[in-house]
Amino acid sequence: MSKEITSRSEDYSQWYIDIVKKAGLADNSAVRGCMVIKPHGFAIWENMKAQLDKMFKETGHVNAYFPLFIPKSFLSKEAEHVEGFAKECAVITHHRLMNDPNGNGVVVDPSAKLEEELIVRPTSETIIWHTYKDWINSYRDLPLLINQWANVVRWEMRTRLFLRTAEFLWQEGHTAHATKNEAVEEARLMQKIYAQFAEEYMAMPVIQGRKTANERFAGAEDTYTIEALMQDGKALQAGTSHFLGQNFAKAFDVKFLNQNNKEELVWATSWGVSTRLVGGLIMTHSDDQGLVIPPKLAPLQVVIVPIPKPNAEIDEAVEKIMRELKAKGVSVKYDTDKKKRPGFKFAEYELIGVPVRLGIGKRDLANGVVEVARRDTKEKSSQSLEGIADYILQLLDDIQKNLFQRAVDYRTEHTTSVDNFDDFKSVLDSKGGFVSAHWDGTTETELKIKELTKATIRCIPNDGVPEDGKCILTGKPSKERVLFAKAY
Amino acid sequence: MSKEITSRSEDYSQWYIDIVKKAGLADNSAVRGCMVIKPHGFAIWENMKAQLDKMFKETGHVNAYFPLFIPKSFLSKEAEHVEGFAKECAVITHHRLMNDPNGNGVVVDPSAKLEEELIVRPTSETIIWHTYKDWINSYRDLPLLINQWANVVRWEMRTRLFLRTAEFLWQEGHTAHATKNEAVEEARLMQKIYAQFAEEYMAMPVIQGRKTANERFAGAEDTYTIEALMQDGKALQAGTSHFLGQNFAKAFDVKFLNQNNKEELVWATSWGVSTRLVGGLIMTHSDDQGLVIPPKLAPLQVVIVPIPKPNAEIDEAVEKIMRELKAKGVSVKYDTDKKKRPGFKFAEYELIGVPVRLGIGKRDLANGVVEVARRDTKEKSSQSLEGIADYILQLLDDIQKNLFQRAVDYRTEHTTSVDNFDDFKSVLDSKGGFVSAHWDGTTETELKIKELTKATIRCIPNDGVPEDGKCILTGKPSKERVLFAKAY
Repeated sequence: MSKEITSRSEDYSQWYIDIVKKAGLADNSAVRGCMVIKPHGFAIWENMKAQLDKMFKETGHVNAYFPLFIPKSFLSKEAEHVEGFAKECAVITHHRLMNDPNGNGVVVDPSAKLEEELIVRPTSETIIWHTYKDWINSYRDLPLLINQWANVVRWEMRTRLFLRTAEFLWQEGHTAHATKNEAVEEARLMQKIYAQFAEEYMAMPVIQGRKTANERFAGAEDTYTIEALMQDGKALQAGTSHFLGQNFAKAFDVKFLNQNNKEELVWATSWGVSTRLVGGLIMTHSDDQGLVIPPKLAPLQVVIVPIPKPNAEIDEAVEKIMRELKAKGVSVKYDTDKKKRPGFKFAEYELIGVPVRLGIGKRDLANGVVEVARRDTKEKSSQSLEGIADYILQLLDDIQKNLFQRAVDYRTEHTTSVDNFDDFKSVLDSKGGFVSAHWDGTTETELKIKELTKATIRCIPNDGVPEDGKCILTGKPSKERVLFAKAY
Repeated sequence: MSKEITSRSEDYSQWYIDIVKKAGLADNSAVRGCMVIKPHGFAIWENMKAQLDKMFKETGHVNAYFPLFIPKSFLSKEAEHVEGFAKECAVITHHRLMNDPNGNGVVVDPSAKLEEELIVRPTSETIIWHTYKDWINSYRDLPLLINQWANVVRWEMRTRLFLRTAEFLWQEGHTAHATKNEAVEEARLMQKIYAQFAEEYMAMPVIQGRKTANERFAGAEDTYTIEALMQDGKALQAGTSHFLGQNFAKAFDVKFLNQNNKEELVWATSWGVSTRLVGGLIMTHSDDQGLVIPPKLAPLQVVIVPIPKPNAEIDEAVEKIMRELKAKGVSVKYDTDKKKRPGFKFAEYELIGVPVRLGIGKRDLANGVVEVARRDTKEKSSQSLEGIADYILQLLDDIQKNLFQRAVDYRTEHTTSVDNFDDFKSVLDSKGGFVSAHWDGTTETELKIKELTKATIRCIPNDGVPEDGKCILTGKPSKERVLFAKAY
């Protein structure tokens, strides 16, 4: 089965598509650019969602739900927002179908034209800030810390399963604050939470930084980002958190009475991660045999395969192992299907990324052992049945850490400091990855570099140190390095 | 605060709206017919969702996600389905906006017209069965037991928060089976699960039954329903499960090779419950002081109010109670706000439906007691601090049972058997509720009765007993009673 997967070295893009489709994660649909998220892919997203939701709630956020549709006029209210966003979107113009007078199914009823067109939300700042006007009157109503889990639509021309789709699932936090400081702190806190989630749960190391003016969210005063590196040396923007200043409060006239009874405009943030994370997870860890999922997010953590098939003796031993594992909160399945041979099952579980596989045969039992295979390194070993549950618990933890370390090592090897444009181009053309370089701080230079190399500034790292240098393109003075990469 | 709520006896509809708005459950939005679900309302829905999701998974279902949009042509494929459904819906005709050449914000870009219009899903049978064609080849691919949590849109003309909105949140199960029997069993199983959820978690008693041909889902061969009774004597259809026969398999050409290597059409079910359940929960239990939530679904189960305000001694006692309650899985909040007086807080927690309220003052502490108020009966009692956590746990259970029993009693009082049309009308006009009566089995009579009385046949109860009788309208022979009511 693994033979059907194109190898990464042969064609990385095709490898990605093969993994997504053959591991049962997602598929294209009848609607251009929209995907079907299949049960295995959705289970990973559900695990991500559950953990993120917990982290949001622990930091004081609550969930709510706002309308799918946005009146067209709302989009024009925040000038930069509409410039950056609102153009490619799904526009609803009518609210009724009717039988085709010629008998060919249904047609749009021309008499059911909407007075004002509705847009399927590409993001919800406008409809939410319109609502916040009713909810916020006094400093006592602040802060407002709200998150929404929702589907959004952006009419992307070139789509790729999970990474860029016309419809995608995400969460969008929208908070309102009495002071600038508090809003900036909130935006930074959410960046930190995203980074923690990416590293501890997805085992995907990320660089935390700020976006340049050119790469900022439309309508934001500052965009904080987490940037990951995929196995082909391209960067993936994995989550962003925006300090929106008072831009949306101005656009929607949202003011509050402060403690001195004076009217002030409200300060805002928004932040989001999406099903794109599933794409990031796939590309960070998987190999030519299939999907690799970090144990903390794996829908199924352990599978037990009887060799060559189930029998009373094996069943009994497995029953005991499963009971112990379940008691420790580990998800486990016993594959008793007699129609498939063990070798076929092994390949199948490798393909869908189950972190640990146990094989148990009659001879193993006689020797009091079981064969344990780990998905990340594909190492197999014989382990004593005595204390096997504890061993597996430790192994799952090892795999989680190993995946993270492997990704960190890859990133370290693929992060290069350069000091001139020739080196810059040559690194991008050869090994790719992040390139740390000086830049003169202008959008003009940034765009010129993008035009020449396709590399963009991924971020100005939070942990950057002041350093005098010269812009790799213009030679103008620079005070700190920024991180370039080609990106998804 | 409770004074602002219209009483049920004065105006039941206004009472409902007052509860929804003042308890912070939902609000109207800028988009006609679409609601904003506020944090408190959404927290109730989240609790419902978590429990339902657990029950679906325990019965072998998995979640997936299908596109929001449906190509217009799909809707015409199942003739009855399009008749019953597809007319009032949101139609997407364009995919781009552009700056208004006259400088007035944005307008639809006429050059971005879609070749085929897309419909925002009113329900997903068509797009899902189009997908199933690719997923199902052999009997080995069956059964397919898939559920989706999603938003759907039906362009309703008369909307009411939670009960009937243009956009609503729901789950829709879509299963595929090799045999008719298996599909019928699945549809009945989901009816049973819905009933169990309604009664055990929402404390809302329901009648399980079948819909008449006239009230069936468009495209179904049989619709199983759960019907609840609200406090104004009107029925609420709370969930439906459909046996779809082979209608969608025919429409989308979904066949499988059976064990004898012969091609057969696949059998289908679909089933759903929605945010309408939140409306049902409100109307089943709440009173003139505000919302009443069954403890099993309450976002906050216990609130502790210091009297008159927090101090070190009270804080210490509360800390201990909270620790014990949390250890038992009870959600609890200590309201230390010094700006509000206890009386104000009491009214506020009554309004938002917290099941148990503790009041603790200095004198109580000296006597080793605490004042416990239960939301359902509004009874207060003084309870020993010793063993208070166990007492509260039992109390939450009592409240859950009491709410259910109260609703059962109400329904019993408001279910009447009648044998002639005069009695039928008089019961409907006076006490309302369910009316059990004989009917001749024809759609014609059913519609005539609806025209004359506004009452519809809610269902043919599952537990109905064969009984010879005469139709209340036509006098024609009937073999069993059916349940009529005016309905939401």
